Amino acid sequence: MTEVEAGKPQTTLQSHLARVEELLRRHRLVEGLAHRQEGLHHDLVENLVHRQNLAELQREIDQLHPADIAHILESLPQEDRQSIWNLVKSDRDGEILLEVSDAVRESLLAEMDTPEILAAAEQLDADELADLAEDLPEDVLYTLMQRLTAEQRERVQSAMAWEEDQVGALMDFDMVTIREDVSLEVVLRYLRRLKEIPDHTDKLFVVNGDNLLTGVLPVRWLLVNDPARNVSEVMAADANTFHPEDDVTETAQAFERYDLVTAPVVDGEGKLIGRLTIDAMVDVIREAGEAEALSRGGLREGEDIFASVWRSVRNRWLWLAVNLVTAFIASRVIGLFEGSIEKLVALAALMPIVAGIGGNSGNQTITMIVRAFALDQISPASAKRLLRKELGVALINGVIWGGVIGIVAWLLYGNPALGLVMTLAMTLNLLLAAFMGVVIPMGLLRMDRDPAMGSSVMITALTDSGGFFIFLGLATLFLI
Amino acid sequence: MTEVEAGKPQTTLQSHLARVEELLRRHRLVEGLAHRQEGLHHDLVENLVHRQNLAELQREIDQLHPADIAHILESLPQEDRQSIWNLVKSDRDGEILLEVSDAVRESLLAEMDTPEILAAAEQLDADELADLAEDLPEDVLYTLMQRLTAEQRERVQSAMAWEEDQVGALMDFDMVTIREDVSLEVVLRYLRRLKEIPDHTDKLFVVNGDNLLTGVLPVRWLLVNDPARNVSEVMAADANTFHPEDDVTETAQAFERYDLVTAPVVDGEGKLIGRLTIDAMVDVIREAGEAEALSRGGLREGEDIFASVWRSVRNRWLWLAVNLVTAFIASRVIGLFEGSIEKLVALAALMPIVAGIGGNSGNQTITMIVRAFALDQISPASAKRLLRKELGVALINGVIWGGVIGIVAWLLYGNPALGLVMTLAMTLNLLLAAFMGVVIPMGLLRMDRDPAMGSSVMITALTDSGGFFIFLGLATLFLI
Repeated sequence: MTEVEAGKPQTTLQSHLARVEELLRRHRLVEGLAHRQEGLHHDLVENLVHRQNLAELQREIDQLHPADIAHILESLPQEDRQSIWNLVKSDRDGEILLEVSDAVRESLLAEMDTPEILAAAEQLDADELADLAEDLPEDVLYTLMQRLTAEQRERVQSAMAWEEDQVGALMDFDMVTIREDVSLEVVLRYLRRLKEIPDHTDKLFVVNGDNLLTGVLPVRWLLVNDPARNVSEVMAADANTFHPEDDVTETAQAFERYDLVTAPVVDGEGKLIGRLTIDAMVDVIREAGEAEALSRGGLREGEDIFASVWRSVRNRWLWLAVNLVTAFIASRVIGLFEGSIEKLVALAALMPIVAGIGGNSGNQTITMIVRAFALDQISPASAKRLLRKELGVALINGVIWGGVIGIVAWLLYGNPALGLVMTLAMTLNLLLAAFMGVVIPMGLLRMDRDPAMGSSVMITALTDSGGFFIFLGLATLFLI
Repeated sequence: MTEVEAGKPQTTLQSHLARVEELLRRHRLVEGLAHRQEGLHHDLVENLVHRQNLAELQREIDQLHPADIAHILESLPQEDRQSIWNLVKSDRDGEILLEVSDAVRESLLAEMDTPEILAAAEQLDADELADLAEDLPEDVLYTLMQRLTAEQRERVQSAMAWEEDQVGALMDFDMVTIREDVSLEVVLRYLRRLKEIPDHTDKLFVVNGDNLLTGVLPVRWLLVNDPARNVSEVMAADANTFHPEDDVTETAQAFERYDLVTAPVVDGEGKLIGRLTIDAMVDVIREAGEAEALSRGGLREGEDIFASVWRSVRNRWLWLAVNLVTAFIASRVIGLFEGSIEKLVALAALMPIVAGIGGNSGNQTITMIVRAFALDQISPASAKRLLRKELGVALINGVIWGGVIGIVAWLLYGNPALGLVMTLAMTLNLLLAAFMGVVIPMGLLRMDRDPAMGSSVMITALTDSGGFFIFLGLATLFLI
């Protein structure tokens, strides 16, 4: 965190990282010297420098925010990461483990023994423990659960019972609840008796004797209203409430739409069971964008950039294999027309253009539609209209760009018929791309699958094989 | 917003949309009838039904949150969008214009006349006006500025002076400031005299007589501390402060990292000039994810899904043209080897596999690196290590997948030498992809360009042309 100081440039993440890297480099340098040189005297001196370096590194780390340490750990190669991790005070381990990416958390936990993990876990709330639980070895998790109070254990278990993409998995239990039949003055006095009010508390939850949520009292309203008034007069009777089984993506969109900071989670009977905060929703929003970028780029999951070569190979294997299969199919489509290519070798040079433009155009359509789906903008009524529009765009692009390329092909090979076949093939492949670009995501959605996942691979496979087939087929019909 | 009511399913966006669509459909049905039928009697009846329908639609819209109306407008085709927009009460126009996407805002403003726009703008704060200003016709903007108070005008102008990606463009002026030499009791009384505390206020800003920010007082601390204590004893001396020229992406990351709800913006001298809120930062985070997905998909900007065919063509034109040029270059590379292909037509069928796998693998590398850049995880020290790792991954994939495809090619064409050339070409193209996958984003970054933008197109162009050249070149050397 930066101090409030006039004109002082903000300390950035990169500068923290650079500083730690410099200290690490010095540390390794000394270690290297100690190895190479002999003699008692040298040893002592080096030992001193060594310890000074470590102490400085320790100081640097102690004053960093857990999120910043997490960032530094993510940015360092395995061995350096381990050195820094060993310097982190054990009572901060827990919060830092929550901040790092899944891949890095795995690498850190792999090097910790059971007592260390237990010590780290002890610092965490029930909802945080539940987040960590899935990455823990089973025996450690068992021991951990034994040590919790009954209430904590119940909370951890209830949070773990929900899927990762459900509100129940993201809620916390840091709620301030009040009764509606008391005055604001009483509420203010009650708050003052609390040692601390949970982070992000922008509203108090009003419940009755059965823990049924009857309203919310924004803290802002508590502050501006006459303390003599009753909670029931001031509170909002309606609020954005969520259920543990709600989808987190839609919930995050609601937070964004209604500018929420916190919101109550209630069960089927309307009883208050937890709280959602904007920081958890921000993670959902960021991760949704990342997951899309990753899957489009052909990665299975977020990769630790310093993962071993072998781990990286495994992360990318699936998509390469899928790509290989589709490329092989496209290759067999070309194989069908080897006779034509032998007679008119220009076909071999021109065919990738037809396939490539189709893939590009199909991906444009899919990107737009997947995005509109994600924003809930497509209703059944608008599907037909969209298809018409996309086909229109494809036809225009086909005639214009296909025409340009057709003329170039004509000039290049002195064969007007070849140019015409090229134009026709491009137009048809663009129409195929537009049609499939609408149909594939809609189909995936109807089958209850994520339309973002895999639709790009499918459209490229179709426009490749389809493009080769259309172009070589037309050429065989009209030119050979 | 949903009411707090036990067991009641949450009203979703889609159901609002479906309801409005149904009412619109009925509305059009009646209009259609009125056109087809004659006679005074019918006219009157239809008119009545018509008006009832409109009234119902109006009621439905009036009770919706501005963000929900924005969503419905985005999800409706142009003419329906216009019908709904005309039903929106003019005092809500402003906030809805702020909520809709850029493309839809343009389409709505295009149909509004000057008095309507001015009426809409009058409801907005200075920072909101600044957001809208760039989309307004110049004469309207001029008239609007004339009507503002001097202070408002200055704020709009200062907000407009900053680039879209700078903190200054996103800050608002809804701050509650206090002095440090008063007691919390005084602060509480001061707040009670305010009619309203701005949205999201989770901390009060402590300033001295020169408006220099000396600290912040979290509202949570105001509530739990003894009212007799002074602000200076309770406030936090350090805080995350930002400057108007800061980059919004980094600022949004800081909000996420430190779980901020609001933060002060200070000028070079440390004077408080504005405030950032989490809702603006959430937009930044979402838009960053979207921009990446869009540019990867080959769209220039977010597209109104009901844009005219012509508008869509223009939005996609640039990327298609770039793609066409790269495809044409790849085609000319193949053209160099037409003689070889004529002699061994299997080359034509196999070459797209080499190019395709290279492109896929290069995109995996780029996706990972662009993401690591975005998260600030790559330091100069780690670049070399990354390159080594990526080359290692490429070598393994090349030997394994290249080997598999080599054997398949051998079996398919009964030519072991062809299989060997295939394996060798795939390995070399994967190494090229890995090398370029690291070098391209690093190069773009060094040239101060966004590494996400265009790197996918560049890598695909290189692995296509490179793949064809390597494979056909090797084949010409060893097989022909």
